[in-house]
Amino acid sequence: MNAQQGRLSVVGLGPGADELVTDQVRAAIAAASDAFGYFPYVARLSGLEHVKLHASDNREELERAREALNTAAEGRQVLMLSSGDPGVFAMASAVFEMLDHAQPQEQARWAAVDIEVLPGITAMLAASARLGAPLGHDFCTINLSDNLKPALVIERRIQLAAQADFAMAFYNPCSKSRPEGFERALRVLRAECEPDRLICFARNVSRPDETLQVHRLADVTAEMADMRTLVIVGNSCTRRVGKHVYTPRSYAV
Amino acid sequence: MNAQQGRLSVVGLGPGADELVTDQVRAAIAAASDAFGYFPYVARLSGLEHVKLHASDNREELERAREALNTAAEGRQVLMLSSGDPGVFAMASAVFEMLDHAQPQEQARWAAVDIEVLPGITAMLAASARLGAPLGHDFCTINLSDNLKPALVIERRIQLAAQADFAMAFYNPCSKSRPEGFERALRVLRAECEPDRLICFARNVSRPDETLQVHRLADVTAEMADMRTLVIVGNSCTRRVGKHVYTPRSYAV
Repeated sequence: MNAQQGRLSVVGLGPGADELVTDQVRAAIAAASDAFGYFPYVARLSGLEHVKLHASDNREELERAREALNTAAEGRQVLMLSSGDPGVFAMASAVFEMLDHAQPQEQARWAAVDIEVLPGITAMLAASARLGAPLGHDFCTINLSDNLKPALVIERRIQLAAQADFAMAFYNPCSKSRPEGFERALRVLRAECEPDRLICFARNVSRPDETLQVHRLADVTAEMADMRTLVIVGNSCTRRVGKHVYTPRSYAV
Repeated sequence: MNAQQGRLSVVGLGPGADELVTDQVRAAIAAASDAFGYFPYVARLSGLEHVKLHASDNREELERAREALNTAAEGRQVLMLSSGDPGVFAMASAVFEMLDHAQPQEQARWAAVDIEVLPGITAMLAASARLGAPLGHDFCTINLSDNLKPALVIERRIQLAAQADFAMAFYNPCSKSRPEGFERALRVLRAECEPDRLICFARNVSRPDETLQVHRLADVTAEMADMRTLVIVGNSCTRRVGKHVYTPRSYAV
């Protein structure tokens, strides 16, 4: 009898509410034997007796990917959990990095693993929906964390994005270990954009403690964003209508 | 007895497969009395006897928004259907534009309508998942259609995005009425990026006739993209590993 083929499904759980999980991801969870991920994501599967849970801290993404690949190579049906979408500043790239830089012995062991990525509702699109439609025209998506790239690259990207008049979604605007991330971004925005530019702060979207705020750039302060905030910067045409914020589809010069 | 409050739910059906629809959107469909949208999206609800279907052609977005708002103002539970996510080059912005520019009589009629936007899996994230993780680092999202903005704005945005070394997702790369859209984008990419840059073509993602292709920029030709293709341009670090394409999380200068 051949052993069952191992599978690693890198899945997105969405921003928090169960109603934002896709059926595709639900089916993968139902078929899984093991689940790896950061503590709070793994906690969302607690109570499922058929799944062995392997929780780890953040900043341990590559080691987590290695263990998940090793487990899948034993013929198990393994989940790698991300919140939001696994392809946006989450675990999918970490898994492929680990594969790409594997030692020959690991490569041989992992060759038979079937790897799939199952999309989810990423934070910026959940936030955009709750706010209205601030990302309804061309936009860009920037991780403000300088853990894995130089702060100067981030500042340069924000500057060029403002010159292109993209709306922008900022992930990980700051954290306890990087309190200055969003403040640096604000300095660039103030140099490039008009004071009336709309800046949206969406915290814990789709959870019971969700908060939404919209301010003019001139009124924004750095402490409005923390590590659980998704920031959306409008483009020069972004407007309010009633309680909503939207970016028009048309753009004139 | 008061009339029931009207509601307009602008919902995302995802890229095509039913397993990529969220429970939140399924619940909105179950509660709906009417559904508006472009013909092929409305066709996805055919067979649901409790929903009155109102299909219209594309390029009629504002008139469709007006009719949906009028129907909701009668106290009905109205869906506005988009494929993918309603906030990404879809109907959410059109609804808010119509609200914003309403005549006073319309504004009064629509004031009591409860408007909500329910997110969906947008094409670029479905495509990214099938390819691997090409959007795993900072990226931007550009609609290549020049129906609603000048072609020069599009070219300038691609140029600045390349200089920022964003990965890029292109929606609506070209159509029968705009055959030159993707060709113009390619000219900018060839001027700004190295010939080995990876370009991904994802057509009809999650449908039975899905196709995925990955080519070096030097080998790309304009006819590789049509109106049903989502194009992802890697950044300078985007790589292949096995059958997958990914962009590393780290970025050095």
